[in-house]
Amino acid sequence: MATLKDIAAKLNVSTSTVSKGMNGAPDISESMRQLILDTAVELGYTKRSSRQKDKKKICLFFENIDYYLDDDFGHDIILGFKQAAFRENWDVEVIPLSHGFQKKRSYDAFMLGEKIVGSMICGFAFDDPWMKDLETTKVPTVLFDNYLQENPYLGSVGTDSLEGMELAVRHLVSLGHERIAYLAGPEDSYIARIRTDAYRRSMRMHHLPVVPELIAHDYFVYESAKPYTKDFLEHGATAILCGNDLIAEGVIDECKKAGLSVPDEVSVLGYDDLPSTEKIDPPLSTIRQDRLMIGKSGYYILHALINGVPLSRNLIRPRLIVRGSTAMVKPR
Amino acid sequence: MATLKDIAAKLNVSTSTVSKGMNGAPDISESMRQLILDTAVELGYTKRSSRQKDKKKICLFFENIDYYLDDDFGHDIILGFKQAAFRENWDVEVIPLSHGFQKKRSYDAFMLGEKIVGSMICGFAFDDPWMKDLETTKVPTVLFDNYLQENPYLGSVGTDSLEGMELAVRHLVSLGHERIAYLAGPEDSYIARIRTDAYRRSMRMHHLPVVPELIAHDYFVYESAKPYTKDFLEHGATAILCGNDLIAEGVIDECKKAGLSVPDEVSVLGYDDLPSTEKIDPPLSTIRQDRLMIGKSGYYILHALINGVPLSRNLIRPRLIVRGSTAMVKPR
Repeated sequence: MATLKDIAAKLNVSTSTVSKGMNGAPDISESMRQLILDTAVELGYTKRSSRQKDKKKICLFFENIDYYLDDDFGHDIILGFKQAAFRENWDVEVIPLSHGFQKKRSYDAFMLGEKIVGSMICGFAFDDPWMKDLETTKVPTVLFDNYLQENPYLGSVGTDSLEGMELAVRHLVSLGHERIAYLAGPEDSYIARIRTDAYRRSMRMHHLPVVPELIAHDYFVYESAKPYTKDFLEHGATAILCGNDLIAEGVIDECKKAGLSVPDEVSVLGYDDLPSTEKIDPPLSTIRQDRLMIGKSGYYILHALINGVPLSRNLIRPRLIVRGSTAMVKPR
Repeated sequence: MATLKDIAAKLNVSTSTVSKGMNGAPDISESMRQLILDTAVELGYTKRSSRQKDKKKICLFFENIDYYLDDDFGHDIILGFKQAAFRENWDVEVIPLSHGFQKKRSYDAFMLGEKIVGSMICGFAFDDPWMKDLETTKVPTVLFDNYLQENPYLGSVGTDSLEGMELAVRHLVSLGHERIAYLAGPEDSYIARIRTDAYRRSMRMHHLPVVPELIAHDYFVYESAKPYTKDFLEHGATAILCGNDLIAEGVIDECKKAGLSVPDEVSVLGYDDLPSTEKIDPPLSTIRQDRLMIGKSGYYILHALINGVPLSRNLIRPRLIVRGSTAMVKPR
């Protein structure tokens, strides 16, 4: 476990500065104090928590999303959530979730039993056993990329797909593309549906036709590229927008197999900006979901819910990251 | 100005309890402390602020929305914002806004000059001079019922119109209504457009026809009822949904003038739940926008923006309030 010394070394300040920052001494600037707290969380320093006995506990649930390794999708969500919560003196637990786990105890019983006053849930699907419990729970709860109606104790956070798709389509249009295909996630996924609607909306806003042959749905995985890429190309697609980066990686490989160069002959745009996307050849242009900010926003919305404020849908802003997989359209 | 004694009297506790609560003494429970702080704000106690010299300032701007009187729309927005901000030790100023004011100084120059680190803006329209400044500002800013794309320093809060309209339409459908007219706000208003789209969506979800003759747009005022109510009734409307409570009050009076009883012959449903709606005859059924919660959510989103978290669109939950202006459909 990290010590005050480790934090001091990382920040290149004295141990006493770190100690003062951790204890909120008045001669440390607020920005230095926050940097010290953020770094403490990043390095896994936890001593401060154990000293305070009246600390309340909130938690993060994870299902279907890896988080252990640095480049796992969930890793920075946890880091951001903990950094924001640590500043305001909360204890945070991370709990992996399965269907079996949920069937053993109801959501409210679990939270009450563990004395956890609120949670953020990542990776939930409509068929999860706790979904039913969430409709009526009174435990403040934030869902990532999911949404339930009418319960004032529930909020949701995610990246704004309308703005993300608009950034994506506008980027491709600015490069002269008009036949823009969309390889979406599964039709029964809440977020995949939202993104597909957003794609249609942006295409219409740019006065481009929404061609049924240029839209397909499959899982959010590399393998989904294979059945559709060739078909898109045969229907004249000059750019292929993808539901996430994994699909995009598959699409790039399928284009290569078909003897087409990315980006010279086909532009490919991903969604998410996974840490691994820089290593793809060519490096993937994509729409960034800032996972650190998703974690932080999850905390802020949970904080509001715990204070009785019924914030329901909440979105953070995406960013367009232009790398090497998109270029000016060239007639084939 | 209120004193500690006034707060003590209102809460029926001793002055020393209030003093302890204000100073965060450890022998006062957290819920009592928060009640004391909320009451202090409600009564206008401000002494605590002036004693602390390192307090940072945020502000609320108001334009086109009254807030001075208890039953003004803006009154409780301010109260909620201040209550949430006071707990976290911010100084809050309320500043009335006009076009002239905005033309004198740019937004950023004003905020910098006044040393205000963030704001919530209520009542803005697309033609406000500061709108242009907001596209590029780096001052954390929350817009109420308005939205601008792509600037990560801007967030918006408002009540969820999709959920609100769904509550409204579902209520009328449950009473047997099928010919549900909608008298909306002006077409160039962001929020009026959103609500009209939400009306169409809910009608379709309940498999009801969206009839062009049963939709009209006008200002958010009492007088807007006159040109449309008779027409709606002639086209067979059995229920009239209104863009806000003021329009609904006008519609009720127009129905009476046409010799029709509300709710026996026509159901009328408002939107907002203004304090005055209970006094309408019959008392108005409506969709509540909780203004206290709008204020609080504005603070929480601003707090997140100030901490660098780019929350953009944020919605709080509406509630259906059933009073006397809606009833089972009766064939005329």
